[in-house]
Amino acid sequence: MSGLVHPNVLFPADGQLRSIARALYQTVANLPIISPHGHTDPRWYALDEPFPDPAQLLIVPDHYIFRMLFSQGIALEDLGVKRLDGSPVETDGRSIWRLFAENYHLFRGTPTRLWMDYVLSSLFNIEEPLNSRTADSSYDRIAEKLRQPEYRPRALFKRFNIEVIATTEGALDDLRWHKMIRDSGWDGRVVTAYRPDAVVDPDFEGFAANLDTLGDITGEDTATWSGYLAAHRKRREYFKSFGATSSDHGHATADTANLSPSEAAALFDKVRSGKADNNERRFFRGQMLTEMAKMSLDDGLVLQIHPGSLRNHSPSMLARHGRDMGFDIPTRTDYVGALKPLLDAVGLERNLTVVLFTLDETSYARELAPLAGVYPALKLGPAWWFHDSPEGMRRFREMTTETAGFYNTVGFNDDTRAFPSIPARHDIARRVDCAFLARLVAEHRLREEEAFDLAKELAYTLAKSAYRL
Amino acid sequence: MSGLVHPNVLFPADGQLRSIARALYQTVANLPIISPHGHTDPRWYALDEPFPDPAQLLIVPDHYIFRMLFSQGIALEDLGVKRLDGSPVETDGRSIWRLFAENYHLFRGTPTRLWMDYVLSSLFNIEEPLNSRTADSSYDRIAEKLRQPEYRPRALFKRFNIEVIATTEGALDDLRWHKMIRDSGWDGRVVTAYRPDAVVDPDFEGFAANLDTLGDITGEDTATWSGYLAAHRKRREYFKSFGATSSDHGHATADTANLSPSEAAALFDKVRSGKADNNERRFFRGQMLTEMAKMSLDDGLVLQIHPGSLRNHSPSMLARHGRDMGFDIPTRTDYVGALKPLLDAVGLERNLTVVLFTLDETSYARELAPLAGVYPALKLGPAWWFHDSPEGMRRFREMTTETAGFYNTVGFNDDTRAFPSIPARHDIARRVDCAFLARLVAEHRLREEEAFDLAKELAYTLAKSAYRL
Amino acid sequence: MSGLVHPNVLFPADGQLRSIARALYQTVANLPIISPHGHTDPRWYALDEPFPDPAQLLIVPDHYIFRMLFSQGIALEDLGVKRLDGSPVETDGRSIWRLFAENYHLFRGTPTRLWMDYVLSSLFNIEEPLNSRTADSSYDRIAEKLRQPEYRPRALFKRFNIEVIATTEGALDDLRWHKMIRDSGWDGRVVTAYRPDAVVDPDFEGFAANLDTLGDITGEDTATWSGYLAAHRKRREYFKSFGATSSDHGHATADTANLSPSEAAALFDKVRSGKADNNERRFFRGQMLTEMAKMSLDDGLVLQIHPGSLRNHSPSMLARHGRDMGFDIPTRTDYVGALKPLLDAVGLERNLTVVLFTLDETSYARELAPLAGVYPALKLGPAWWFHDSPEGMRRFREMTTETAGFYNTVGFNDDTRAFPSIPARHDIARRVDCAFLARLVAEHRLREEEAFDLAKELAYTLAKSAYRL
Repeated sequence: MSGLVHPNVLFPADGQLRSIARALYQTVANLPIISPHGHTDPRWYALDEPFPDPAQLLIVPDHYIFRMLFSQGIALEDLGVKRLDGSPVETDGRSIWRLFAENYHLFRGTPTRLWMDYVLSSLFNIEEPLNSRTADSSYDRIAEKLRQPEYRPRALFKRFNIEVIATTEGALDDLRWHKMIRDSGWDGRVVTAYRPDAVVDPDFEGFAANLDTLGDITGEDTATWSGYLAAHRKRREYFKSFGATSSDHGHATADTANLSPSEAAALFDKVRSGKADNNERRFFRGQMLTEMAKMSLDDGLVLQIHPGSLRNHSPSMLARHGRDMGFDIPTRTDYVGALKPLLDAVGLERNLTVVLFTLDETSYARELAPLAGVYPALKLGPAWWFHDSPEGMRRFREMTTETAGFYNTVGFNDDTRAFPSIPARHDIARRVDCAFLARLVAEHRLREEEAFDLAKELAYTLAKSAYRL
Repeated sequence: MSGLVHPNVLFPADGQLRSIARALYQTVANLPIISPHGHTDPRWYALDEPFPDPAQLLIVPDHYIFRMLFSQGIALEDLGVKRLDGSPVETDGRSIWRLFAENYHLFRGTPTRLWMDYVLSSLFNIEEPLNSRTADSSYDRIAEKLRQPEYRPRALFKRFNIEVIATTEGALDDLRWHKMIRDSGWDGRVVTAYRPDAVVDPDFEGFAANLDTLGDITGEDTATWSGYLAAHRKRREYFKSFGATSSDHGHATADTANLSPSEAAALFDKVRSGKADNNERRFFRGQMLTEMAKMSLDDGLVLQIHPGSLRNHSPSMLARHGRDMGFDIPTRTDYVGALKPLLDAVGLERNLTVVLFTLDETSYARELAPLAGVYPALKLGPAWWFHDSPEGMRRFREMTTETAGFYNTVGFNDDTRAFPSIPARHDIARRVDCAFLARLVAEHRLREEEAFDLAKELAYTLAKSAYRL
Repeated sequence: MSGLVHPNVLFPADGQLRSIARALYQTVANLPIISPHGHTDPRWYALDEPFPDPAQLLIVPDHYIFRMLFSQGIALEDLGVKRLDGSPVETDGRSIWRLFAENYHLFRGTPTRLWMDYVLSSLFNIEEPLNSRTADSSYDRIAEKLRQPEYRPRALFKRFNIEVIATTEGALDDLRWHKMIRDSGWDGRVVTAYRPDAVVDPDFEGFAANLDTLGDITGEDTATWSGYLAAHRKRREYFKSFGATSSDHGHATADTANLSPSEAAALFDKVRSGKADNNERRFFRGQMLTEMAKMSLDDGLVLQIHPGSLRNHSPSMLARHGRDMGFDIPTRTDYVGALKPLLDAVGLERNLTVVLFTLDETSYARELAPLAGVYPALKLGPAWWFHDSPEGMRRFREMTTETAGFYNTVGFNDDTRAFPSIPARHDIARRVDCAFLARLVAEHRLREEEAFDLAKELAYTLAKSAYRL
């Protein structure tokens, strides 16, 4: 790494801790990347076209970046973020990059700053701090690199030492890009994951039409509960044929339900008719988590639950720019009562893996570690989203390890669409975990040889085994 | 500083961290104090009379002190705290001081202990630990000093290097002391802040009569919604003429509302009639926060929201001693749903500043940092009340910085009526922030020159700019 | 200690912090153990028979151990945990021990690992790490020791330097083992504690019959409210005659109530009739906490409240193995509103001691420290259950000390039925507290001589005085 990212970044200041952390880190620094959950675009790997200009690659699609700039009064339009009404927005990559560069100090102390410095330095060999003075030279450097074949998606995939990466596709997706990757004969391992929110959540845009499409695609009668479930089973098989080993579910809460088949069928009818009230729609989402868990028992897909985000907090911004514009805000989330129906149904199954995530850190020590520390079906996903950060990852370990141990966790998820930052994200997770292990060793709570075992488990093995990759 | 407060107080033990923290601190230690929110008495600056005896100055009015002593079985009456029924209480300053001194060990590990040691040492040059043996000598020393002209309020104001201090006055206050300060020609900058709880909160004692008084003072018809709003506007202007740059609102929750003008008018009529139920009164308070935010858009006052304290938890103590007797207890506080109506109305405004405080630290990383990290109108106030402490300030930075950054925070508030402790409080905040920055530097998450910038921002600049002072 | 547990275990890595922590620790390491709350079996001390085989002593009854193994797919039956239906389970101690040993890595980073290593090394002089290779030799060593007279309960009691230990018995217990201990003339001090859940909680199995039994035992008419209260008073006196200084209450919430005598009597009648609804039963439990507090004012028993565990989360496991099988999960817990009725009634009493526990760490800084920091009747119990761990104890101090101080806490509880681990648990608490104090000293927030005072208070004196032992 260049001068922008110090070789000791994220290691503790104390000399003894630092030297243990570094020794641990050196054994995992070059392990391949297992990326079992994320949002990169399979089109990139399929077409292997050059990435666009630096701003379109690194700024415009990154909600961490534009939300912070927006919070300080910068218009999204000036950052090139599209408007739904088609009004013009900035398209000049250099202008957007300059605006970012001159406000780069706003990111001090944030993971965005770390990720970006890593990318600038490791990927583009930029050694000068980004600011208004260096904006143009860095822009030129990046733009020049992006035109080179070594910076195309597949070349970067190899350079990043990715052993396997999962993308996330909706239930109605035809997986054409995954097909093209497979047909291309390229040996990079890119798998999909089954994300059926659009046909599971009655509040999703176009839910009723989505059900019809699901029927068309699968040849099942999605006007009936049994046909609807059969259609899911078929889609899951189809996704599995493109390497999927997991499904993923993003709900506002962690609520689950465990209705009898006839109750569930009646609820489905009501939901499909559009006459279900708020509570019934919530109940239906919860029932579907349990249904998915039951299907997982049959087909082996790992079930991921990502609850607790209140989406599109600002209706004005939703109307102006659409979804995923940085206005998703975490809320207090219950797991103990919410998961009980699902756990009553399948929680004791040893062959089921349900990976739980949270945006509410208060649940780590109080709810999630105690649950994952006893139910065979449960595992804890890593620190997520706003908590995917050095302090967030440290808190995750400090608050879950003593009750759930390390072996009920599943390694790291980068969970990102920011492809160039993937090595940075995994490297940061490895460093923070090694720093945590170093403290346990220095305080004689763990023997050194155990810490070396664990460093590898946390960096590589657990992700691979938990996600069955 | 004398032997009571070590020059390295609050710096980390590790040598490298300590030396970075100290280097940062040395550049901010002598910066002037910006105190944008607090509760000192403007009468002091107006009359510039000597402070009363040591106990009346340092013990009797300090709820941090008497609540702790009370918790260990000491009667408030023995500490000189007045009773509403006029029953006699201890009035001998020396007796009160002795009682405090012999129980001073109870404060070990608390910020009260730090503040008091600072005051004893920096202000009164006392170098011996306070205890029953030293009680009399310290009492005598302080009493003697308080008789000297250098210990009068205006002299201390200069000695403390206060650039500007805000007091807090109710909407019905005539600001006579502020007038007297202004008329005196003294150059100390003391500004007021607009705290309209008594005419905004239907549960406030004498609410209906307060509305009438508000009408009398402003010449507006406060029996009507439009007259009531006009009266607020006039009072805000009046407060601005005495330097106010902010309003302040202490509600039990962070609830806001965003009614149409006709709905709001109807609600006001009901509230004014005394017939509003609990929910309607809560709704009215919430509506008024939004109204105040809209007025802020016009007149530029910064809006501060201090929610989440359940006031007067003990009815017996309320009956015996009145309000603010240490029985205000924090409660779980929601922001994501509660602030939505206000944010829907004005959250995207770049020219509005709403400063959010919390007594519920679980909201830092989960709700407040994500909200302030995207809404242009929002900023995060510093760690408040029970959390205005070394551990509390550390947790604030650790849990907000990664999502909200430093620049969506507003520096330090001392929020105190304990005038002699003001330099101590600011010094502690500066030290804790420098210690936090030192860790970021030592872990290579921040460059040293950036930390020097930030140390000054956190100690001085952000408070001045966010509060428009 | 042997090689398994380092002499510096749990001291901070930093040299200065470590040397202060060690100096503090050396003054408290050998203080007698005060164990004011726990679940050891008085039968052990009464009969003084040899303990059973290593697995029956150390694995089978330990829910921390079998829940973790179960979470990783190991059947409880294979661990020797009894089934309610009498189906066979593993009874061979050596097989159970081997299964544990080969999965011992699962406990890395957990307190169970620390406790077990302490027991293996300090009690059984085992110096090799436990694993599948060393399973048999450690099993043999432990089995051999357990046959020796020095490993009988009374000998270990002396060896552990226990000054006093409290067990916990139900209200209907005849305390025969306590009687036998007293009659034996043995000088070990074993006291009971009054745990009346079975006759206070209408949801307890056999509640109505339990009331009848309570009447039979006491000669009071427990069909009436006044007779029921009188019966409690008699049982409390009886428990006091066997050394009890406390009562203990495990409720799902911290709810309390403060009804008038006639309302309470009417509620009792309804509850006794079995016709009370959920809310009324909850109300009754809350009323009984207040009644118990009032009795405490008369008879001096310390009232302990252990709320917030949702018991028996898995109905399948409850049906298969019964209660206390690792499926009790903490839930979000309110104290501010919940305790108000009790505090309104007796919170200001200086002669009452109510010790509050929590499984919801968010309440430490927000609710519990502010409450205990003002109400004379309240004290804070130590970090409990899942939080009785190095990180949990550190968080407890960091989040309570600044508002409640040290003197509103009550020292350590081991709260265990795992007798051999008692010295380990107290030693860990002493080390973690000394490490916390060392940081305060190194950061000049406390003088060294004060830290020495406090180390002893936290390790010994506070438990003895708070529990009136």
